[in-house]
Amino acid sequence: MNIGFIGPGIMGAPMALNLIKAGHVLSVYARRPEVTQGLVSAGAMAYSSPAEAASGVDVIFTIVSDTPDVEEVIFGEKGIVKGAKPGTVIVDMSTISPTATKQFAERLEKQGLEMLDAPVSGGETGAINGTLSIMAGGKKEIFERVKPLFECMGKNIVHVGGNGAGQVAKACNQIVVAVTIEAVAEALTFARRNGADPEKVREALMGGFAGSRIMEVHGKRMLDNDFRPGFKVGLHQKDMRIVMETAHQLGVALPAAALVAQHLNALMGMHDADLDSSAIVKVIERMSGE
Amino acid sequence: MNIGFIGPGIMGAPMALNLIKAGHVLSVYARRPEVTQGLVSAGAMAYSSPAEAASGVDVIFTIVSDTPDVEEVIFGEKGIVKGAKPGTVIVDMSTISPTATKQFAERLEKQGLEMLDAPVSGGETGAINGTLSIMAGGKKEIFERVKPLFECMGKNIVHVGGNGAGQVAKACNQIVVAVTIEAVAEALTFARRNGADPEKVREALMGGFAGSRIMEVHGKRMLDNDFRPGFKVGLHQKDMRIVMETAHQLGVALPAAALVAQHLNALMGMHDADLDSSAIVKVIERMSGE
Repeated sequence: MNIGFIGPGIMGAPMALNLIKAGHVLSVYARRPEVTQGLVSAGAMAYSSPAEAASGVDVIFTIVSDTPDVEEVIFGEKGIVKGAKPGTVIVDMSTISPTATKQFAERLEKQGLEMLDAPVSGGETGAINGTLSIMAGGKKEIFERVKPLFECMGKNIVHVGGNGAGQVAKACNQIVVAVTIEAVAEALTFARRNGADPEKVREALMGGFAGSRIMEVHGKRMLDNDFRPGFKVGLHQKDMRIVMETAHQLGVALPAAALVAQHLNALMGMHDADLDSSAIVKVIERMSGE
Repeated sequence: MNIGFIGPGIMGAPMALNLIKAGHVLSVYARRPEVTQGLVSAGAMAYSSPAEAASGVDVIFTIVSDTPDVEEVIFGEKGIVKGAKPGTVIVDMSTISPTATKQFAERLEKQGLEMLDAPVSGGETGAINGTLSIMAGGKKEIFERVKPLFECMGKNIVHVGGNGAGQVAKACNQIVVAVTIEAVAEALTFARRNGADPEKVREALMGGFAGSRIMEVHGKRMLDNDFRPGFKVGLHQKDMRIVMETAHQLGVALPAAALVAQHLNALMGMHDADLDSSAIVKVIERMSGE
């Protein structure tokens, strides 16, 4: 299949490479052309605008930083819509606003273009190993058409619902991960300040209802004081901003998510943007005099 | 072994029965004598005070409602200390204050008595099936002596540390369970209000870092609107009161735990004390106009 790929960054580059390895022909575009070099060596063709990269492809992936970036690469002066033939499927794998995603899909439909939102989780390791979780929103038949391509990049691939539903699922993922990290951080700090061994407490809790992958992985990071990412504070903060903006638009109160978003803000103030977000425990400790 | 058992209630009665089934001789005491009838039929002897039930036993278990109840049955006018011989081990399986527990253990040591704190999780089902999780605090050698008795009642039996450490672990368990329920409740409400299918979102999330036993079990209860306990709001509220009192004493900030404690308070105001604590989702929904 002729495929376009926009945004071959830390996540995007290994994802694009997995598509090439599976035998697909890739047209790539990056804001900074030098980042496409590895893909070009692997057989991709590099273009100087999203419009050109979109020309003649059946499916074009985008994975960029934030909502305005997606809008720019799709609808901008040299955006995808300026080059794509009718029926092209635009698959946005960025993590952006669910509300904006629905609007983008409606605008594209009017122009005869299809859209899926398909944000991922699993980090750089998942991108390299092709084991990402992919949460997709959009028409079922479009999802089925793109699914073989998703399977080059991920393992846990779920069609969640209509346009925007993938972004909603990703937002939910970030809420649960952030708030569960907070839960574990508060519990382990409480244990230690009570004079108990937090390592033993974690062990005792793992077997019961308090057990989770966050307790296992992020709890361990807290005990070891090892905050190498993993998933960076700066990105989690951005994702929680999207959550809180969406909650604002919908009139839904998310009190614990809002609280943890503030702790991510605090970490930014502590210049800890590049730590793993399990560093939330540092906020709890600092707050109580450590 | 000659064993005393004080507080054969919803949890205590099946736990005591499992000790009898394992061949132990039980002396029981209950504030309401009628609740001991089942155990007496099974071979236990009922006494009219904790002091009498403690007379001549090697180990005496207590499982009562709250910190003052434990103080009363141990140190009260007809308390355990009035009847127990030197060296008797008092094993408190109630969920009470870690701070008070440490003080009780010190007072008992001065009187030549041993103490373990050994709160449980796993609910009535775990008590009946002998599959409780038991988190124990106290001297290691005393724990080892009582361990065969714990094995009649539970499966996941951990010695967490010195006196009070079991109560600390239980408190941590209740923090993590409460805050994770809140996380799942906020995420599933957010999903639904965004027009996504919360069932599909839960599925998509289960495979990744947002996966947990709470997402699995309590998330399902929320989707099914089925709040039969499980673990009751009224008990979870009481346990979170102990957590917040202990945090107050230690000078440790637990912002998310405090927030969720308020949601449990709200459920009490909604007359939902007897629902499963996954009913926290009702607070989130109601808060946002449902």
